[in-house]
Amino acid sequence: MPYIPLEEHLPGITGLLEYRKDTAEPIRALTQTLLRGPSTLSPGERELIATIVSHRNECRFCSTAHTAAADLLLGECETTEQIKKDLSSAPVSAKMKALLTIAAHVQKSGKAVTTESVEKAKAAGATDLEIHDTVLIAALFCLYNRYVDGLSTVAPTDPNFYKGLAERIAVGYNRLPQGYDHLKKH
Amino acid sequence: MPYIPLEEHLPGITGLLEYRKDTAEPIRALTQTLLRGPSTLSPGERELIATIVSHRNECRFCSTAHTAAADLLLGECETTEQIKKDLSSAPVSAKMKALLTIAAHVQKSGKAVTTESVEKAKAAGATDLEIHDTVLIAALFCLYNRYVDGLSTVAPTDPNFYKGLAERIAVGYNRLPQGYDHLKKH
Repeated sequence: MPYIPLEEHLPGITGLLEYRKDTAEPIRALTQTLLRGPSTLSPGERELIATIVSHRNECRFCSTAHTAAADLLLGECETTEQIKKDLSSAPVSAKMKALLTIAAHVQKSGKAVTTESVEKAKAAGATDLEIHDTVLIAALFCLYNRYVDGLSTVAPTDPNFYKGLAERIAVGYNRLPQGYDHLKKH
Repeated sequence: MPYIPLEEHLPGITGLLEYRKDTAEPIRALTQTLLRGPSTLSPGERELIATIVSHRNECRFCSTAHTAAADLLLGECETTEQIKKDLSSAPVSAKMKALLTIAAHVQKSGKAVTTESVEKAKAAGATDLEIHDTVLIAALFCLYNRYVDGLSTVAPTDPNFYKGLAERIAVGYNRLPQGYDHLKKH
């Protein structure tokens, strides 16, 4: 049960983005640019960063939603499962493994990122911009996870909800989840 | 020494906001709306939320900068000192004490916010929107602190740097720190 009155049919982040639209707009814009804008990291790779951070923050809504988005974009479910279970043996490139390690550090604290982990990422071919974006995406999901759980929003149990949401966010973060378009008029 | 090449004369967040301007724009817009936009919480009270979160995340740059901003807006230095040392005896209203307690929970995790702490805030007169904004401001500073420290940016030791920065951010977050206006043209 949310701590503030949110639309019952809008669970997790969706109700919050409707609750205060003037703050939702820059949050959506930042997410769209970082996760769907031009990048040498694919949208699927960037969703893996969102997934590992949300999973480690134990945010059920965000973790399930971004797992579904990553699965859809990557075309398989094994990678998200493995990065959550054991990153070191996950079927991703050495560069992605190093970037996901940095993201996992950011989840704990900015200070937890080490020179060693950054050097490892650079040695595996990560660019400065990729390192920057990894840190900022991880930091952004530390915001999202706290926003969603800090106000005690509801996380649906039906997997179909997250499949539908993933189909929408795979396209972009500027759109509302399907079926909620009528809310745009308010 | 930052992990990515940043302008040497732009420490902390200032260099990051110049490094990638298309992500900086929505970050600035979100901060401006949340911390300086219309609200029943004063800008000084909102800076206290930024301060307690940055302090507990041990982010030296953000903690010093927002302490300086809060001190300037409140016209005294005792409150920021006390909320960092012992929130329960800080010279703030019962409502602000309850909201700062919620912010301190958000710093740890979204899940750390309790029904009890939210009820205490409501009993002390906090509105739903004030609770929403407190959670989102606290979550935003969990982003900032991780962004600033996760890329190992430099925190100046000269208190005058933060005084100058506070004078600028007291006016608003859409502006660059004094002396850096020439960078806008790049």
